[in-house]
Amino acid sequence: VTFAEETRVRAVGGGAYAAVIAEGWDVLGNTNGGYLLTLAARASMEEAGRPDPVSVTAHYLRPSQAGEAEIGTTVLKEGRRFATVSAMVRAGGQDRVAVLGSYGDLEGRGGFERMESAAPDLPAPERCVRLEPTETFPPPVTGKIDLRLHPDDAARLLDGGSGEPRVSGWFRLGDGEPMDTVALLLAVDVFPPTSFNARLPVAWTPTLELTAHVRARPVPGWLRCQFSTRFITGGFLEEDGEVWDDSGRLVAQSRQLALLPESR
Amino acid sequence: VTFAEETRVRAVGGGAYAAVIAEGWDVLGNTNGGYLLTLAARASMEEAGRPDPVSVTAHYLRPSQAGEAEIGTTVLKEGRRFATVSAMVRAGGQDRVAVLGSYGDLEGRGGFERMESAAPDLPAPERCVRLEPTETFPPPVTGKIDLRLHPDDAARLLDGGSGEPRVSGWFRLGDGEPMDTVALLLAVDVFPPTSFNARLPVAWTPTLELTAHVRARPVPGWLRCQFSTRFITGGFLEEDGEVWDDSGRLVAQSRQLALLPESR
Repeated sequence: VTFAEETRVRAVGGGAYAAVIAEGWDVLGNTNGGYLLTLAARASMEEAGRPDPVSVTAHYLRPSQAGEAEIGTTVLKEGRRFATVSAMVRAGGQDRVAVLGSYGDLEGRGGFERMESAAPDLPAPERCVRLEPTETFPPPVTGKIDLRLHPDDAARLLDGGSGEPRVSGWFRLGDGEPMDTVALLLAVDVFPPTSFNARLPVAWTPTLELTAHVRARPVPGWLRCQFSTRFITGGFLEEDGEVWDDSGRLVAQSRQLALLPESR
Repeated sequence: VTFAEETRVRAVGGGAYAAVIAEGWDVLGNTNGGYLLTLAARASMEEAGRPDPVSVTAHYLRPSQAGEAEIGTTVLKEGRRFATVSAMVRAGGQDRVAVLGSYGDLEGRGGFERMESAAPDLPAPERCVRLEPTETFPPPVTGKIDLRLHPDDAARLLDGGSGEPRVSGWFRLGDGEPMDTVALLLAVDVFPPTSFNARLPVAWTPTLELTAHVRARPVPGWLRCQFSTRFITGGFLEEDGEVWDDSGRLVAQSRQLALLPESR
Protein backbone atom coordinates (compact mmCIF):
# COMPACT_ATOMS: atom_id res chain seq x y z
CA VAL A 1 0.00 0.00 0.00
CA THR A 2 1.49 3.32 -1.03
CA PHE A 3 1.43 6.75 0.59
CA ALA A 4 -0.43 8.02 -2.49
CA GLU A 5 -3.14 5.41 -1.86
CA GLU A 6 -3.29 6.02 1.88
CA THR A 7 -3.74 9.77 1.41
CA ARG A 8 -6.36 9.55 -1.32
CA VAL A 9 -9.43 11.75 -0.96
CA ARG A 10 -12.69 11.49 -2.87
CA ALA A 11 -14.99 14.44 -3.58
CA VAL A 12 -18.48 13.86 -2.20
CA GLY A 13 -19.93 17.27 -3.09
CA GLY A 14 -20.31 20.63 -1.45
CA GLY A 15 -16.56 20.96 -0.89
CA ALA A 16 -16.49 17.78 1.22
CA TYR A 17 -14.07 14.92 0.68
CA ALA A 18 -14.17 11.37 2.02
CA ALA A 19 -10.94 9.79 3.19
CA VAL A 20 -9.78 6.88 5.28
CA ILE A 21 -7.32 7.49 8.07
CA ALA A 22 -5.23 4.39 7.43
CA GLU A 23 -4.05 1.96 10.10
CA GLY A 24 -0.45 2.07 11.25
CA TRP A 25 0.29 5.81 11.15
CA ASP A 26 0.27 5.90 14.96
CA VAL A 27 2.37 7.58 17.58
CA LEU A 28 1.40 6.66 21.15
CA GLY A 29 -2.02 5.45 19.99
CA ASN A 30 -2.92 8.53 17.93
CA THR A 31 -2.54 9.15 14.22
CA ASN A 32 0.53 11.17 13.27
CA GLY A 33 -0.28 14.86 12.76
CA GLY A 34 1.71 15.20 9.55
CA TYR A 35 -0.28 12.37 7.98
CA LEU A 36 -3.57 14.03 8.94
CA LEU A 37 -2.30 17.28 7.43
CA THR A 38 -1.62 15.51 4.12
CA LEU A 39 -5.31 14.50 3.92
CA ALA A 40 -6.43 18.09 4.44
CA ALA A 41 -3.91 19.33 1.88
CA ARG A 42 -4.99 16.83 -0.78
CA ALA A 43 -8.64 17.79 -0.34
CA SER A 44 -7.81 21.53 -0.40
CA MET A 45 -5.62 21.16 -3.51
CA GLU A 46 -8.29 19.21 -5.34
CA GLU A 47 -11.02 21.69 -4.40
CA ALA A 48 -8.90 24.63 -5.54
CA GLY A 49 -7.38 22.87 -8.56
CA ARG A 50 -3.79 23.61 -7.50
CA PRO A 51 -1.00 21.06 -7.62
CA ASP A 52 1.17 22.14 -4.65
CA PRO A 53 0.87 23.32 -1.05
CA VAL A 54 2.77 26.59 -0.52
CA SER A 55 2.04 27.58 3.09
CA VAL A 56 -0.11 25.34 5.23
CA THR A 57 -1.02 25.71 8.91
CA ALA A 58 -2.68 23.06 11.05
CA HIS A 59 -4.16 23.48 14.52
CA TYR A 60 -4.58 20.14 16.25
CA LEU A 61 -7.91 20.15 18.07
CA ARG A 62 -8.21 16.53 19.20
CA PRO A 63 -6.24 13.31 18.68
CA SER A 64 -7.40 10.97 15.92
CA GLN A 65 -7.36 7.27 15.25
CA ALA A 66 -7.65 5.16 12.10
CA GLY A 67 -11.04 5.04 10.43
CA GLU A 68 -13.31 6.93 8.11
CA ALA A 69 -12.85 10.68 7.88
CA GLU A 70 -14.35 13.60 6.06
CA ILE A 71 -12.52 16.75 5.06
CA GLY A 72 -14.68 19.83 4.64
CA THR A 73 -13.11 22.52 2.47
CA THR A 74 -13.96 26.13 1.66
CA VAL A 75 -12.07 28.05 -1.01
CA LEU A 76 -11.57 31.53 0.45
CA LYS A 77 -9.74 33.10 -2.47
CA GLU A 78 -8.92 32.08 -6.02
CA GLY A 79 -5.99 34.19 -7.13
CA ARG A 80 -3.80 34.08 -10.18
CA ARG A 81 -0.87 32.45 -8.39
CA PHE A 82 -2.42 31.11 -5.19
CA ALA A 83 -5.69 29.83 -3.86
CA THR A 84 -6.39 29.99 -0.13
CA VAL A 85 -8.47 27.21 1.36
CA SER A 86 -9.83 26.51 4.83
CA ALA A 87 -10.25 22.83 5.71
CA MET A 88 -11.40 20.70 8.63
CA VAL A 89 -10.56 17.03 9.15
CA ARG A 90 -13.49 15.34 10.91
CA ALA A 91 -13.64 11.80 12.19
CA GLY A 92 -15.92 10.00 14.61
CA GLY A 93 -18.32 12.92 14.51
CA GLN A 94 -15.76 15.42 15.79
CA ASP A 95 -13.51 18.11 14.36
CA ARG A 96 -9.89 16.93 14.63
CA VAL A 97 -7.58 19.20 12.65
CA ALA A 98 -8.26 22.74 11.39
CA VAL A 99 -6.14 23.76 8.42
CA LEU A 100 -5.64 27.05 6.63
CA GLY A 101 -3.45 26.98 3.57
CA SER A 102 -2.45 28.64 0.35
CA TYR A 103 -1.80 26.44 -2.66
CA GLY A 104 -0.28 27.05 -6.07
CA ASP A 105 1.99 25.66 -8.75
CA LEU A 106 5.65 25.32 -7.78
CA GLU A 107 6.84 23.99 -11.13
CA GLY A 108 9.99 25.71 -12.29
CA ARG A 109 9.99 28.69 -9.93
CA GLY A 110 13.38 30.27 -9.62
CA GLY A 111 14.95 33.69 -9.57
CA PHE A 112 17.27 35.37 -7.09
CA GLU A 113 18.82 33.07 -4.47
CA ARG A 114 20.59 33.75 -1.21
CA MET A 115 21.13 30.90 1.22
CA GLU A 116 22.48 31.30 4.73
CA SER A 117 23.32 27.62 5.02
CA ALA A 118 23.35 24.46 2.95
CA ALA A 119 21.78 21.05 3.45
CA PRO A 120 22.79 19.33 6.70
CA ASP A 121 25.84 17.12 6.62
CA LEU A 122 24.76 13.51 7.14
CA PRO A 123 26.55 10.18 6.78
CA ALA A 124 25.20 8.13 3.86
CA PRO A 125 21.76 6.58 4.51
CA GLU A 126 23.28 3.10 4.89
CA ARG A 127 25.47 4.44 7.69
CA CYS A 128 22.55 6.05 9.50
CA VAL A 129 20.15 4.27 11.86
CA ARG A 130 16.82 3.23 10.42
CA LEU A 131 14.00 3.56 12.92
CA GLU A 132 12.04 0.32 13.08
CA PRO A 133 8.51 0.38 14.47
CA THR A 134 7.65 -0.83 17.97
CA GLU A 135 4.50 -0.40 20.05
CA THR A 136 6.14 2.49 21.93
CA PHE A 137 9.32 4.18 20.65
CA PRO A 138 10.11 4.16 17.76
CA PRO A 139 6.38 4.48 17.07
CA PRO A 140 4.36 2.37 14.60
CA VAL A 141 4.39 5.21 12.01
CA THR A 142 8.08 4.53 11.35
CA GLY A 143 6.99 1.29 9.66
CA LYS A 144 5.24 3.34 6.98
CA ILE A 145 8.33 5.29 5.96
CA ASP A 146 12.08 4.97 5.72
CA LEU A 147 13.50 7.29 8.36
CA ARG A 148 17.22 7.10 9.13
CA LEU A 149 18.61 9.12 11.99
CA HIS A 150 22.08 10.55 12.11
CA PRO A 151 24.00 7.92 14.14
CA ASP A 152 24.92 10.50 16.79
CA ASP A 153 21.26 11.40 17.29
CA ALA A 154 20.24 7.74 17.34
CA ALA A 155 22.86 6.83 19.94
CA ARG A 156 21.97 9.80 22.10
CA LEU A 157 18.24 9.22 21.90
CA LEU A 158 18.74 5.71 23.27
CA ASP A 159 21.09 7.10 25.90
CA GLY A 160 18.61 9.67 27.23
CA GLY A 161 19.41 12.46 24.82
CA SER A 162 22.38 14.67 24.01
CA GLY A 163 20.90 17.60 25.89
CA GLU A 164 20.78 19.49 22.61
CA PRO A 165 17.25 19.79 21.19
CA ARG A 166 18.23 18.78 17.67
CA VAL A 167 17.62 15.80 15.46
CA SER A 168 18.59 15.10 11.86
CA GLY A 169 18.42 12.32 9.34
CA TRP A 170 17.18 11.02 6.02
CA PHE A 171 13.58 10.55 5.00
CA ARG A 172 11.88 8.79 2.13
CA LEU A 173 8.60 6.99 1.68
CA GLY A 174 8.52 3.20 2.01
CA ASP A 175 9.97 1.30 -0.96
CA GLY A 176 11.33 4.58 -2.30
CA GLU A 177 7.89 5.66 -3.56
CA PRO A 178 8.20 8.97 -5.45
CA MET A 179 7.49 12.01 -3.30
CA ASP A 180 5.31 14.92 -4.31
CA THR A 181 5.12 18.18 -2.38
CA VAL A 182 2.40 16.73 -0.13
CA ALA A 183 4.87 14.12 1.14
CA LEU A 184 6.94 17.04 2.47
CA LEU A 185 4.10 17.83 4.89
CA LEU A 186 4.61 14.37 6.31
CA ALA A 187 8.40 14.68 6.40
CA VAL A 188 8.23 17.77 8.63
CA ASP A 189 6.20 16.05 11.35
CA VAL A 190 7.42 12.48 11.53
CA PHE A 191 10.87 12.67 13.11
CA PRO A 192 11.28 12.09 16.85
CA PRO A 193 10.63 15.40 18.64
CA THR A 194 13.66 17.52 19.43
CA SER A 195 12.58 17.29 23.05
CA PHE A 196 13.62 13.61 23.05
CA ASN A 197 17.19 14.78 22.64
CA ALA A 198 16.92 17.55 25.20
CA ARG A 199 16.46 15.63 28.46
CA LEU A 200 13.23 17.48 29.19
CA PRO A 201 11.30 16.51 32.31
CA VAL A 202 8.35 15.38 30.17
CA ALA A 203 7.47 12.30 28.15
CA TRP A 204 5.79 14.05 25.25
CA THR A 205 5.38 17.48 23.73
CA PRO A 206 2.03 17.64 21.94
CA THR A 207 1.78 19.88 18.89
CA LEU A 208 -0.64 22.78 19.13
CA GLU A 209 0.12 24.22 15.70
CA LEU A 210 2.29 23.35 12.71
CA THR A 211 3.10 25.54 9.71
CA ALA A 212 4.95 24.25 6.66
CA HIS A 213 6.27 26.32 3.78
CA VAL A 214 6.98 24.42 0.59
CA ARG A 215 9.56 26.08 -1.65
CA ALA A 216 9.97 23.61 -4.49
CA ARG A 217 9.14 20.14 -5.75
CA PRO A 218 11.76 17.63 -4.63
CA VAL A 219 13.83 15.73 -7.19
CA PRO A 220 13.64 11.93 -6.82
CA GLY A 221 15.73 10.50 -3.98
CA TRP A 222 16.27 10.90 -0.27
CA LEU A 223 15.36 14.01 1.69
CA ARG A 224 17.82 15.45 4.20
CA CYS A 225 15.97 16.75 7.25
CA GLN A 226 16.95 18.58 10.40
CA PHE A 227 14.94 19.89 13.31
CA SER A 228 15.96 22.17 16.14
CA THR A 229 14.51 24.05 19.06
CA ARG A 230 15.97 27.35 20.22
CA PHE A 231 13.56 28.48 22.88
CA ILE A 232 11.86 26.45 25.58
CA THR A 233 9.99 28.98 27.69
CA GLY A 234 6.52 29.92 28.87
CA GLY A 235 5.40 26.30 28.74
CA PHE A 236 5.99 26.11 24.98
CA LEU A 237 8.75 25.20 22.57
CA GLU A 238 9.09 25.82 18.86
CA GLU A 239 10.48 23.15 16.58
CA ASP A 240 11.96 24.42 13.32
CA GLY A 241 12.49 22.03 10.44
CA GLU A 242 14.33 22.14 7.14
CA VAL A 243 13.93 19.63 4.34
CA TRP A 244 16.44 19.47 1.48
CA ASP A 245 16.17 17.32 -1.61
CA ASP A 246 18.77 15.11 -3.25
CA SER A 247 19.98 17.95 -5.47
CA GLY A 248 20.82 20.02 -2.39
CA ARG A 249 17.84 22.32 -2.75
CA LEU A 250 15.74 23.56 0.17
CA VAL A 251 12.26 22.19 -0.54
CA ALA A 252 10.44 22.89 2.73
CA GLN A 253 10.67 24.72 6.02
CA SER A 254 8.48 24.11 9.02
CA ARG A 255 7.82 25.47 12.47
CA GLN A 256 5.58 24.01 15.09
CA LEU A 257 4.51 25.22 18.49
CA ALA A 258 4.48 22.37 20.98
CA LEU A 259 3.34 22.28 24.56
CA LEU A 260 5.60 21.47 27.43
CA PRO A 261 3.24 19.78 29.86
CA GLU A 262 3.70 21.01 33.41
CA SER A 263 5.77 18.51 35.33
CA ARG A 264 4.28 17.41 38.61
CA VAL B 1 -5.90 58.14 19.71
CA THR B 2 -4.53 54.95 21.22
CA PHE B 3 -3.77 51.54 19.72
CA ALA B 4 -6.39 50.08 22.06
CA GLU B 5 -8.98 52.44 20.56
CA GLU B 6 -7.89 51.87 16.99
CA THR B 7 -8.12 48.10 17.34
CA ARG B 8 -11.48 48.05 19.10
CA VAL B 9 -14.06 45.57 17.82
CA ARG B 10 -17.76 45.50 18.59
CA ALA B 11 -19.90 42.36 18.56
CA VAL B 12 -22.81 42.62 16.16
CA GLY B 13 -24.16 39.09 16.59
CA GLY B 14 -23.67 35.73 14.95
CA GLY B 15 -19.94 35.76 15.63
CA ALA B 16 -19.48 38.94 13.61
CA TYR B 17 -17.64 42.03 14.84
CA ALA B 18 -17.64 45.56 13.49
CA ALA B 19 -14.36 47.45 13.38
CA VAL B 20 -12.86 50.47 11.72
CA ILE B 21 -9.59 50.14 9.85
CA ALA B 22 -8.10 53.40 11.07
CA GLU B 23 -6.37 55.95 8.88
CA GLY B 24 -2.60 56.19 8.92
CA TRP B 25 -1.59 52.55 9.30
CA ASP B 26 -0.41 52.49 5.70
CA VAL B 27 2.56 51.06 3.92
CA LEU B 28 2.69 51.94 0.20
CA GLY B 29 -1.02 52.81 0.20
CA ASN B 30 -2.22 49.63 1.91
CA THR B 31 -3.00 49.00 5.56
CA ASN B 32 -0.20 47.25 7.47
CA GLY B 33 -0.80 43.51 7.75
CA GLY B 34 0.10 43.30 11.42
CA TYR B 35 -2.53 45.91 12.25
CA LEU B 36 -5.20 43.97 10.31
CA LEU B 37 -4.17 40.84 12.20
CA THR B 38 -4.73 42.60 15.52
CA LEU B 39 -8.37 43.28 14.53
CA ALA B 40 -8.93 39.60 13.75
CA ALA B 41 -7.26 38.56 16.98
CA ARG B 42 -9.35 40.92 19.12
CA ALA B 43 -12.57 39.63 17.56
CA SER B 44 -11.47 35.99 17.95
CA MET B 45 -10.43 36.50 21.57
CA GLU B 46 -13.70 38.19 22.45
CA GLU B 47 -15.75 35.50 20.71
CA ALA B 48 -13.85 32.73 22.53
CA GLY B 49 -13.52 34.58 25.83
CA ARG B 50 -9.74 34.16 25.97
CA PRO B 51 -7.36 36.97 26.94
CA ASP B 52 -4.27 36.14 24.83
CA PRO B 53 -3.32 34.99 21.34
CA VAL B 54 -1.06 31.92 21.48
CA SER B 55 -0.51 30.90 17.85
CA VAL B 56 -2.07 32.96 15.11
CA THR B 57 -1.73 32.58 11.33
CA ALA B 58 -2.87 35.10 8.73
CA HIS B 59 -3.13 34.59 4.98
CA TYR B 60 -3.28 37.91 3.17
CA LEU B 61 -5.83 37.64 0.39
CA ARG B 62 -6.10 41.22 -0.84
CA PRO B 63 -4.69 44.59 0.21
CA SER B 64 -6.87 46.78 2.44
CA GLN B 65 -7.39 50.46 3.03
CA ALA B 66 -8.84 52.49 5.89
CA GLY B 67 -12.58 52.27 6.40
CA GLU B 68 -15.29 50.14 7.92
CA ALA B 69 -14.58 46.45 8.34
CA GLU B 70 -16.31 43.38 9.63
CA ILE B 71 -14.62 40.40 11.21
CA GLY B 72 -16.50 37.13 10.97
CA THR B 73 -15.47 34.57 13.57
CA THR B 74 -16.21 30.89 14.12
CA VAL B 75 -15.09 29.11 17.28
CA LEU B 76 -13.84 25.71 16.10
CA LYS B 77 -12.89 24.27 19.47
CA GLU B 78 -13.34 25.30 23.07
CA GLY B 79 -10.74 23.44 25.09
CA ARG B 80 -9.65 23.71 28.68
CA ARG B 81 -6.47 25.62 27.90
CA PHE B 82 -7.03 26.84 24.35
CA ALA B 83 -9.82 27.87 22.02
CA THR B 84 -9.27 27.69 18.27
CA VAL B 85 -11.01 30.30 16.15
CA SER B 86 -11.28 30.92 12.43
CA ALA B 87 -11.72 34.56 11.40
CA MET B 88 -12.06 36.62 8.24
CA VAL B 89 -11.46 40.35 7.96
CA ARG B 90 -13.82 41.79 5.36
CA ALA B 91 -13.88 45.33 4.01
CA GLY B 92 -15.43 46.96 0.97
CA GLY B 93 -17.46 43.83 0.35
CA GLN B 94 -14.41 41.58 -0.01
CA ASP B 95 -12.49 39.10 2.10
CA ARG B 96 -9.10 40.59 2.97
CA VAL B 97 -7.34 38.51 5.61
CA ALA B 98 -8.04 34.92 6.64
CA VAL B 99 -6.90 34.05 10.15
CA LEU B 100 -6.69 30.78 12.04
CA GLY B 101 -5.60 31.02 15.65
CA SER B 102 -5.51 29.39 19.04
CA TYR B 103 -6.06 31.60 22.06
CA GLY B 104 -5.65 31.09 25.79
CA ASP B 105 -4.48 32.63 29.03
CA LEU B 106 -0.74 33.31 29.26
CA GLU B 107 -0.81 34.71 32.79
CA GLY B 108 1.97 33.29 34.92
CA ARG B 109 2.98 30.32 32.76
CA GLY B 110 6.44 29.08 33.56
CA GLY B 111 8.21 25.79 34.02
CA PHE B 112 11.34 24.38 32.44
CA GLU B 113 13.43 26.85 30.43
CA ARG B 114 16.19 26.37 27.90
CA MET B 115 17.21 29.29 25.72
CA GLU B 116 19.65 29.07 22.81
CA SER B 117 20.19 32.81 22.76
CA ALA B 118 19.28 35.93 24.68
CA ALA B 119 17.65 39.20 23.66
CA PRO B 120 19.49 41.05 20.88
CA ASP B 121 22.11 43.54 21.88
CA LEU B 122 20.95 47.03 21.00
CA PRO B 123 22.21 50.50 21.84
CA ALA B 124 19.83 52.37 24.14
CA PRO B 125 16.65 53.64 22.42
CA GLU B 126 17.88 57.22 22.52
CA ARG B 127 20.98 56.14 20.56
CA CYS B 128 18.93 54.29 17.93
CA VAL B 129 17.25 55.88 14.91
CA ARG B 130 13.56 56.60 15.21
CA LEU B 131 11.71 56.06 11.95
CA GLU B 132 9.62 59.10 11.13
CA PRO B 133 6.74 58.74 8.69
CA THR B 134 6.93 59.91 5.10
CA GLU B 135 4.64 59.23 2.16
CA THR B 136 7.04 56.54 0.91
CA PHE B 137 9.78 55.12 3.14
CA PRO B 138 9.63 55.17 6.13
CA PRO B 139 5.92 54.50 5.61
CA PRO B 140 3.04 56.38 7.30
CA VAL B 141 2.51 53.52 9.80
CA THR B 142 5.72 54.52 11.58
CA GLY B 143 3.85 57.61 12.78
CA LYS B 144 1.54 55.38 14.82
CA ILE B 145 4.30 53.72 16.78
CA ASP B 146 7.74 54.37 18.18
CA LEU B 147 10.14 52.23 16.17
CA ARG B 148 13.87 52.76 16.60
CA LEU B 149 16.27 50.93 14.36
CA HIS B 150 19.72 49.82 15.36
CA PRO B 151 21.95 52.64 14.01
CA ASP B 152 23.87 50.18 11.83
CA ASP B 153 20.66 48.97 10.21
CA ALA B 154 19.38 52.50 9.79
CA ALA B 155 22.58 53.68 8.13
CA ARG B 156 22.70 50.69 5.84
CA LEU B 157 19.06 50.93 4.85
CA LEU B 158 19.64 54.48 3.65
CA ASP B 159 22.82 53.36 1.91
CA GLY B 160 21.14 50.58 -0.09
CA GLY B 161 21.37 47.84 2.49
CA SER B 162 24.13 45.93 4.25
CA GLY B 163 23.62 42.89 2.04
CA GLU B 164 22.62 40.94 5.15
CA PRO B 165 18.88 40.30 5.36
CA ARG B 166 18.58 41.35 9.01
CA VAL B 167 17.05 44.21 10.87
CA SER B 168 16.75 44.95 14.58
CA GLY B 169 15.54 47.66 16.87
CA TRP B 170 13.21 48.82 19.60
CA PHE B 171 9.43 48.94 19.43
CA ARG B 172 6.77 50.49 21.58
CA LEU B 173 3.37 51.98 20.97
CA GLY B 174 3.05 55.74 20.56
CA ASP B 175 3.32 57.74 23.80
CA GLY B 176 4.47 54.57 25.55
CA GLU B 177 0.92 53.17 25.68
CA PRO B 178 0.93 49.88 27.61
CA MET B 179 1.20 46.82 25.39
CA ASP B 180 -0.91 43.71 25.71
CA THR B 181 -0.19 40.47 23.86
CA VAL B 182 -2.18 41.70 20.84
CA ALA B 183 0.32 44.53 20.39
CA LEU B 184 2.95 41.83 19.82
CA LEU B 185 1.11 40.83 16.64
CA LEU B 186 1.73 44.34 15.39
CA ALA B 187 5.37 44.37 16.51
CA VAL B 188 6.20 41.31 14.40
CA ASP B 189 5.00 42.89 11.15
CA VAL B 190 5.86 46.55 11.31
CA PHE B 191 9.65 46.69 10.91
CA PRO B 192 11.16 47.38 7.49
CA PRO B 193 11.40 44.04 5.64
CA THR B 194 14.73 42.22 5.87
CA SER B 195 14.82 42.41 2.08
CA PHE B 196 15.46 46.16 2.36
CA ASN B 197 18.81 45.32 3.89
CA ALA B 198 19.62 42.57 1.42
CA ARG B 199 20.03 44.47 -1.84
CA LEU B 200 17.38 42.37 -3.50
CA PRO B 201 16.46 43.20 -7.08
CA VAL B 202 12.89 44.04 -6.01
CA ALA B 203 11.14 46.99 -4.45
CA TRP B 204 8.81 45.06 -2.18
CA THR B 205 8.24 41.54 -0.83
CA PRO B 206 4.52 41.07 -0.18
CA THR B 207 3.53 38.78 2.66
CA LEU B 208 1.60 35.68 1.71
CA GLU B 209 1.36 34.26 5.23
CA LEU B 210 2.38 35.28 8.74
CA THR B 211 2.39 33.13 11.87
CA ALA B 212 3.06 34.54 15.32
CA HIS B 213 3.58 32.56 18.51
CA VAL B 214 3.06 34.46 21.73
CA ARG B 215 4.96 33.02 24.69
CA ALA B 216 4.22 35.47 27.48
CA ARG B 217 2.72 38.84 28.37
CA PRO B 218 5.31 41.60 28.09
CA VAL B 219 6.27 43.64 31.14
CA PRO B 220 5.89 47.41 30.68
CA GLY B 221 8.62 49.06 28.62
CA TRP B 222 10.36 48.76 25.28
CA LEU B 223 10.39 45.60 23.18
CA ARG B 224 13.63 44.42 21.61
CA CYS B 225 12.97 43.01 18.14
CA GLN B 226 15.05 41.31 15.49
CA PHE B 227 14.19 39.88 12.12
CA SER B 228 16.25 37.75 9.79
CA THR B 229 15.99 35.77 6.59
CA ARG B 230 18.02 32.65 6.01
CA PHE B 231 16.71 31.35 2.73
CA ILE B 232 15.75 33.27 -0.39
CA THR B 233 14.89 30.61 -2.95
CA GLY B 234 12.07 29.37 -5.15
CA GLY B 235 10.66 32.88 -5.45
CA PHE B 236 10.02 33.06 -1.69
CA LEU B 237 11.76 34.17 1.45
CA GLU B 238 10.96 33.54 5.07
CA GLU B 239 11.33 36.28 7.65
CA ASP B 240 11.79 35.11 11.23
CA GLY B 241 11.17 37.48 14.10
CA GLU B 242 11.89 37.49 17.81
CA VAL B 243 10.39 39.91 20.31
CA TRP B 244 11.83 40.26 23.81
CA ASP B 245 10.41 42.34 26.62
CA ASP B 246 12.16 44.77 28.95
CA SER B 247 12.84 42.00 31.48
CA GLY B 248 14.81 40.04 28.85
CA ARG B 249 12.07 37.51 28.29
CA LEU B 250 11.14 36.11 24.88
CA VAL B 251 7.50 37.16 24.43
CA ALA B 252 6.88 36.32 20.76
CA GLN B 253 8.30 34.59 17.75
CA SER B 254 7.13 35.03 14.20
CA ARG B 255 7.72 33.67 10.74
CA GLN B 256 6.31 34.97 7.54
CA LEU B 257 6.48 33.71 3.99
CA ALA B 258 6.98 36.57 1.57
CA LEU B 259 7.01 36.62 -2.19
CA LEU B 260 9.99 37.68 -4.21
CA PRO B 261 8.36 39.18 -7.27
CA GLU B 262 10.02 38.04 -10.49
CA SER B 263 12.37 40.74 -11.68
CA ARG B 264 11.88 41.76 -15.27
